[in-house]
Amino acid sequence: MTQTKFIGIVLFDGVEELDAVGPYEVLAYWTRNHPEDGYQVITLSPTGELVTCAKGLRITPDQSFATAPALDVVLHPGGQGTRPLLRRPEHLDWVRDQAATAGLMTSVCTGSLVYAAAGLLKNRPATTHWASLDELTALDASIKVADQARFVDDVDVITSAGVSAGIDMALHLVSRLSFPDRAVSVRRGIQYDPEPPV
Amino acid sequence: MTQTKFIGIVLFDGVEELDAVGPYEVLAYWTRNHPEDGYQVITLSPTGELVTCAKGLRITPDQSFATAPALDVVLHPGGQGTRPLLRRPEHLDWVRDQAATAGLMTSVCTGSLVYAAAGLLKNRPATTHWASLDELTALDASIKVADQARFVDDVDVITSAGVSAGIDMALHLVSRLSFPDRAVSVRRGIQYDPEPPV
Repeated sequence: MTQTKFIGIVLFDGVEELDAVGPYEVLAYWTRNHPEDGYQVITLSPTGELVTCAKGLRITPDQSFATAPALDVVLHPGGQGTRPLLRRPEHLDWVRDQAATAGLMTSVCTGSLVYAAAGLLKNRPATTHWASLDELTALDASIKVADQARFVDDVDVITSAGVSAGIDMALHLVSRLSFPDRAVSVRRGIQYDPEPPV
Repeated sequence: MTQTKFIGIVLFDGVEELDAVGPYEVLAYWTRNHPEDGYQVITLSPTGELVTCAKGLRITPDQSFATAPALDVVLHPGGQGTRPLLRRPEHLDWVRDQAATAGLMTSVCTGSLVYAAAGLLKNRPATTHWASLDELTALDASIKVADQARFVDDVDVITSAGVSAGIDMALHLVSRLSFPDRAVSVRRGIQYDPEPPV
């Protein structure tokens, strides 16, 4: 039997709620309905203790960085809580360690700022929340900023636009890690036929 | 000064993650950036203790039913966890009490099954997740099931289609409780320009 592959969604104080939970819904809907595909989704944080998200929601992660299994895919959400992380060397070290061992690093919204600060995006195409595109360039001028993309798949690094873009990126991830029909069935399961009323 | 009006998002074991957190993001983005509009969003559950959502995410509510302030708007998400609630008289009593005191009852996905079981949808147009439309009719044959609607606004009761439809319904709610331009700015803030890749 094949060993389970783990997708880890990083949580931290000030993480934007939908950045994390949009992709969680998509990925967990897939992995729980199709365990035969071999993936499992977990949430993890530096300490494993309850995090208070950007808008006040309180989530308890499944694991700490220390207790989590080796990850095959990392998903780093954004939110105001990314700004302190940019100046926290141990967090950037953890990101670099993951980039060296996980096959695929993904981000939502300003999660890409953390990847930029860790040096992961050097000379790569990447994106972020529309209001933080300049901040991305300021962190690393070699980044080829894709200001119109919903998400940018650069093989071993995928970055997304703001907040809700993580849902689209996660569907792409399901498609890429399994096959497109799986993503179609997840999309149908979460009835993702968006009709913004404004 | 006007008194704060409260929007309460109901949490319970087995609540579908995005049913709750999609609207939470939209509504909290609005209320936190525009406190001058007079609304505040809280999460609440029967006991106030940590709930384990349908796909495993663990959220700690802000309040219990007993400690929560009087609500002006109730949002009842869906998920597999709604099925035990249909047979829990004290939960249905709570829903009926809220309907008698809150100005507006809203639901996402199979949250409308709970409203149907509580008798709130008698002779009304309403909707739910596409896979549960028959279940809605079975609970109350007088419901005028709207099987193609993203959400149904029946003045003091609003029901939504499955999971991700809660995001669209919540934007409608912002528009209705404040004004359309507020909803436009929230939509821009969460970069909600969906591009499903499959």
